[in-house]
Amino acid sequence: MTLTGTLLIGQRDATASKHFRAVNPATGLEMEPPFACATPADVEAACSLAAEAFDAYRSLPFEKRAIFLETIATCLLEDKDVIVARAHLETALPLGRLQGEMGRTVGQLRLFADLVRRGQWSQPCIDPALPDRTPMPRADLRQRRIGVGPVAVFGASNFPLAFSAAGGDTVSALAAGCPVVCRAHPAHPGTGELVGRAIRRAATTCGMPEGVFSLLGGDAHEIGAWLVQHPAIMSVGFTGSYAGGVAISRLAAQRSVPIPVFAEMGSINPVYLYPLALVSRTEALVKGFVDSLTMGSGQFCTNPGLIIALEGKDFDAFVSLAAQALGERSASTMLTPGIHAAYDRGVAQLEQCPGVTLVAQGLEPVSVNQGRPTLFRTTAADFMQSPEMRHEVFGSAALLVSCTDFEEMRALTESLEGQLTITVQMDADDTDLVRRLLPIYERKAGRILVNAWPTGVEVCHAMVHGGPFPATTDTRTTSVGTAAIERFLRPVCYQDLPDSLLPPELSYENPLNLSRLVDGKMQPE
Amino acid sequence: MTLTGTLLIGQRDATASKHFRAVNPATGLEMEPPFACATPADVEAACSLAAEAFDAYRSLPFEKRAIFLETIATCLLEDKDVIVARAHLETALPLGRLQGEMGRTVGQLRLFADLVRRGQWSQPCIDPALPDRTPMPRADLRQRRIGVGPVAVFGASNFPLAFSAAGGDTVSALAAGCPVVCRAHPAHPGTGELVGRAIRRAATTCGMPEGVFSLLGGDAHEIGAWLVQHPAIMSVGFTGSYAGGVAISRLAAQRSVPIPVFAEMGSINPVYLYPLALVSRTEALVKGFVDSLTMGSGQFCTNPGLIIALEGKDFDAFVSLAAQALGERSASTMLTPGIHAAYDRGVAQLEQCPGVTLVAQGLEPVSVNQGRPTLFRTTAADFMQSPEMRHEVFGSAALLVSCTDFEEMRALTESLEGQLTITVQMDADDTDLVRRLLPIYERKAGRILVNAWPTGVEVCHAMVHGGPFPATTDTRTTSVGTAAIERFLRPVCYQDLPDSLLPPELSYENPLNLSRLVDGKMQPE
Repeated sequence: MTLTGTLLIGQRDATASKHFRAVNPATGLEMEPPFACATPADVEAACSLAAEAFDAYRSLPFEKRAIFLETIATCLLEDKDVIVARAHLETALPLGRLQGEMGRTVGQLRLFADLVRRGQWSQPCIDPALPDRTPMPRADLRQRRIGVGPVAVFGASNFPLAFSAAGGDTVSALAAGCPVVCRAHPAHPGTGELVGRAIRRAATTCGMPEGVFSLLGGDAHEIGAWLVQHPAIMSVGFTGSYAGGVAISRLAAQRSVPIPVFAEMGSINPVYLYPLALVSRTEALVKGFVDSLTMGSGQFCTNPGLIIALEGKDFDAFVSLAAQALGERSASTMLTPGIHAAYDRGVAQLEQCPGVTLVAQGLEPVSVNQGRPTLFRTTAADFMQSPEMRHEVFGSAALLVSCTDFEEMRALTESLEGQLTITVQMDADDTDLVRRLLPIYERKAGRILVNAWPTGVEVCHAMVHGGPFPATTDTRTTSVGTAAIERFLRPVCYQDLPDSLLPPELSYENPLNLSRLVDGKMQPE
Repeated sequence: MTLTGTLLIGQRDATASKHFRAVNPATGLEMEPPFACATPADVEAACSLAAEAFDAYRSLPFEKRAIFLETIATCLLEDKDVIVARAHLETALPLGRLQGEMGRTVGQLRLFADLVRRGQWSQPCIDPALPDRTPMPRADLRQRRIGVGPVAVFGASNFPLAFSAAGGDTVSALAAGCPVVCRAHPAHPGTGELVGRAIRRAATTCGMPEGVFSLLGGDAHEIGAWLVQHPAIMSVGFTGSYAGGVAISRLAAQRSVPIPVFAEMGSINPVYLYPLALVSRTEALVKGFVDSLTMGSGQFCTNPGLIIALEGKDFDAFVSLAAQALGERSASTMLTPGIHAAYDRGVAQLEQCPGVTLVAQGLEPVSVNQGRPTLFRTTAADFMQSPEMRHEVFGSAALLVSCTDFEEMRALTESLEGQLTITVQMDADDTDLVRRLLPIYERKAGRILVNAWPTGVEVCHAMVHGGPFPATTDTRTTSVGTAAIERFLRPVCYQDLPDSLLPPELSYENPLNLSRLVDGKMQPE
């Protein structure tokens, strides 16, 4: 398992004239080996292979596609120790966390394999012919969903496994029948290469068409732009910053054939402390909050960056206990020097906002690239005046906001931008108050939690990791959970096709034994 | 049923300082009464009402929403004679066609009422808690789909009923729980007002929140721009020209909160005459083609504008018979002076393209605004050289394209832009050839037809009236059929919500008796 630093273009290893090196954020030092920077010709080669592979790949039996995903999981597990070790060096994320993330990544691949195998994702739907209908007969109409075409996937800095080369975007695209060209995140190129090689090995083992997966590395922003602008690319999955997601969306919209971009850009994830919960379990809330805020150096899209409560002694007590707890937390190494610098900048900007006061900071950094947990306080009135306070500070920084009364809490809620999550801490007797804000929460967020903390995103069927802009670029989707496959599917209708030309999902014999919507009713029910 | 020419802003009739009049395309003369032109203040009033209505409207029981849609159908039927009569004057479409379109519009409302009532559109999905799971318990996660918010609907020129104020976009948005602000098409303002009043009467009868529907008229392009740019608008449904759809999409993408635009912009709808079908039933194909091409003066998004076949005497025979048949067809009045002028311009441009020859024209116009059916011929080689030939000429103009061999037919097919439909005329022994192009057809079109003609779009569950750009701005959707509701839905996930706060779709008792996806399996199956 020696790293070669090459690009993985289908089955071909491509070298380059330009190279870059990964940085170990814990030391600030560059590591071996040098990694190739993709050129426009590399992007062209990978995208053309993907386009060539599309029809062959999407036409494979679902069972073969499922086995491919399972084989990727197997290959990742075979290499898991070396992958986790390299990821640890490249991200400074703890080994335990990375082992957990590997488990999540493998579980995600198997969940989608199961989804593909069952076949209901293709949403087969049949309106049989009505030859005797008056005034006009009805033709036989059959609809299924197919993949949209090659998908560009941008690896995320904060999930080197679960949201990168073999992560949620890749697996949902492959499950949909779409080849993937992955733009490896430059913060963890070695992890990317190792994971990419595991995927390639699975593709070879399963006899997949060559272009089903390619991995393009490099430290230049342009690589992503070339990829998004390539005519073979039909859709984009992205997890990262607001600036990055918006820039990619603009490029995609300006193409001569515009394509959708599914960018998950994070949010401030408001947490509401309702009055009775706040007084009845202040200490538990403080512990839950500080743990969630500081976990993984706060580098989660669902990090709780905004705490909202009614003003008064109960909230003052919460603030004071939270300040004490946070003051004892260590600074911890962030993912990259750039993310660390942005965090320090974001904290400094928040401190400058009118009406914001510093409540507590964690322990001083003891090493390079360490972020220091930070708590600020403000009022709802000041928050609503200040667009700056709405911006996510990626890391362990949070803003505690007090409202003078429930009406102000409602107004504050209406003023929020789109969020991935909104969390409610409530007791049973808070229910009537919560019910009054719930419709607003539904409009503002993709996921609403009660008496939990937003960090921790289950990979399952009901999960929504998405939300209104600016949390994502498309509120109608999720990037976690099986519904993520819908992003990469489109419906095709077949009118009066002879059975010999129909795909198995729609053929008369129903060889895959799917439940199909026939005349609007599921059959078999 | 006197026309007032006012805007319908919720329950309020709004007048204006600027007015315009409808033109009768059959005479070229303006008609009474004058119609108000909406101002930015009118747009603001309608959109604010829609935003206010959203939570109340979407929270109504599905049954009430269904009854509202059915009541719109009833109110339209009560007024159908006066609506059809006015539409006939404003569009020159024959009375029989408009009566049919009224039936289709009413049927569409009832189909969506049925869809709403059944409730499966909300896609309830439950992953129950797993408190004993190791290493981490799973929370209780429940997902449903809700409306995205107020929707702007642009009425279409060519379907004054089925794709305008009470048309497919409006009904699918209302079904999804989204209030609608409709930008009435200036070509048929009286029809718009009459239909809008029927919707308003239904809203009053059913006790709907005031802002559930508004209708804004006017002859200025800016009205649509103000509407798309209004912050309360969360999505856009549009049927019309490529230029219009693209302009609206750009505006929507440039908003500080970008929103999706579902624009159906038409296509040239290639028809393939496979060798054995061509020789075995030349005359029937000629008749089917010429009927489909000239129906409704060719003013259908699915009008067959491109006929593709292998060169040779069989295709020559088809061309010669088609020329003869078309030469006997009358010119007929088009929808508007603007559409007529654009048709004449498009025909002249096509004639200028290198390699294009005029094959036949229908009879001379005998009145204003009449379009003359026109047939051109070219070769696949010339077609592939000329981007101009790919542009839709809205009206009864078609291009007959001969390919030297099957490989050229495949290359031509790969060179096509996105299409609403691709049609195959085949005999059983053509099947092997068709199978070779079918994967390309699937990539290029939303609907594939065999031995039919593309005009005529069934409103049902399996229909796809959509396709890759430039047929639409979002290939993942349809604007006809029940799947159109998906455009206006987004998923929301509820984590550990107490039963008392869950919506009925997701509550423990399942009071709506829905089939729900529980742990990935439909229950009850």
